[in-house]
Amino acid sequence: MEIMQVMGTLVCSYRLAGLDHMHLRILKNNKGKQMVAVDPVGAREGNWVFTASGSAARFACPNSSVLTDLTIGGIIDHWMPDG
Amino acid sequence: MEIMQVMGTLVCSYRLAGLDHMHLRILKNNKGKQMVAVDPVGAREGNWVFTASGSAARFACPNSSVLTDLTIGGIIDHWMPDG
Amino acid sequence: MEIMQVMGTLVCSYRLAGLDHMHLRILKNNKGKQMVAVDPVGAREGNWVFTASGSAARFACPNSSVLTDLTIGGIIDHWMPDG
Amino acid sequence: MEIMQVMGTLVCSYRLAGLDHMHLRILKNNKGKQMVAVDPVGAREGNWVFTASGSAARFACPNSSVLTDLTIGGIIDHWMPDG
Amino acid sequence: MEIMQVMGTLVCSYRLAGLDHMHLRILKNNKGKQMVAVDPVGAREGNWVFTASGSAARFACPNSSVLTDLTIGGIIDHWMPDG
Repeated sequence: MEIMQVMGTLVCSYRLAGLDHMHLRILKNNKGKQMVAVDPVGAREGNWVFTASGSAARFACPNSSVLTDLTIGGIIDHWMPDG
Repeated sequence: MEIMQVMGTLVCSYRLAGLDHMHLRILKNNKGKQMVAVDPVGAREGNWVFTASGSAARFACPNSSVLTDLTIGGIIDHWMPDG
Repeated sequence: MEIMQVMGTLVCSYRLAGLDHMHLRILKNNKGKQMVAVDPVGAREGNWVFTASGSAARFACPNSSVLTDLTIGGIIDHWMPDG
Repeated sequence: MEIMQVMGTLVCSYRLAGLDHMHLRILKNNKGKQMVAVDPVGAREGNWVFTASGSAARFACPNSSVLTDLTIGGIIDHWMPDG
Repeated sequence: MEIMQVMGTLVCSYRLAGLDHMHLRILKNNKGKQMVAVDPVGAREGNWVFTASGSAARFACPNSSVLTDLTIGGIIDHWMPDG
């Protein structure tokens, strides 16, 4: 799993049916790369979270048919970037 | 999922049967790398989209036996690159 | 999927039984990295092709038990590198 | 599999149910990138370990429904970084 | 698949049961990155090999429940690095 920070929410009016009821968050990793993740835990902007990728991302959702390759798995209590 | 921009359509007369009826788009990511994705949403050149990779890419298609490792999941309403 | 150019054929006398009857091509991606792919379409040296990776690479073969993580999906009609 | 060093334990009070009873370790790879892995072997800070990713990470856990994409597979007896 | 060179054997007394009877080799790729792979073909130090990753790595083993994400698929007859 990777550690990322929540930057905001992705607004995407036209998307595939398989993602309809899930929030999509914009995350940033250590290198500043922005990714999009499904959020079943209700993370807020600024939170540090860890994410599961690949097939685990699907199983991490309440409904495993959600069409995701990246899902937030939990909110980290304390995190110091680069440390 | 990753955020990419649609650059155009890939013309590929000779390809595997499992991809026959799907459009293939050329996408570019943040670093300028070009990728090819199946497009079930009808994105146009210049659109910013998010993409699902891996096994999720197959499930994101109407027919899950489509032979893809990258599928467009939705068109983003507003996107500022690097911001 | 990624866009790569065919560099040649890999000669490999001693390999696992699950790959026995498939051609293995040496491909080069944008960054000059060399990869090995199963070729069910009959690509030739110099051709630009697109490749499917991961579990899709297995399904892209006539026999889905072929032990591959990269398979050529089609030959591109026209391609200008870096453009 | 990759070789990484254990840096510590991740404290994460609010996380998905599918990970409840597994320890999460913070690992660092060769390039200094920090990752989070499920630890079924009981590794300690400073240990060098090898990790399995992808679907293998799930099967590497006692319960294959654990929601992980990275799992510690073993503790290396002797390891010299960059050597 | 990727092309790598065998550097040696990994000694790992304490590891998960699912890997018990397979040899683990240390490989090095083009960029000098070291990886660990299961070896069902009996490669020796110095050999150039190609490797399958992801779910294909599991299917490449005699027993598909082996907990691996990288498996040696064959020994290359002749190989010139960077060429």
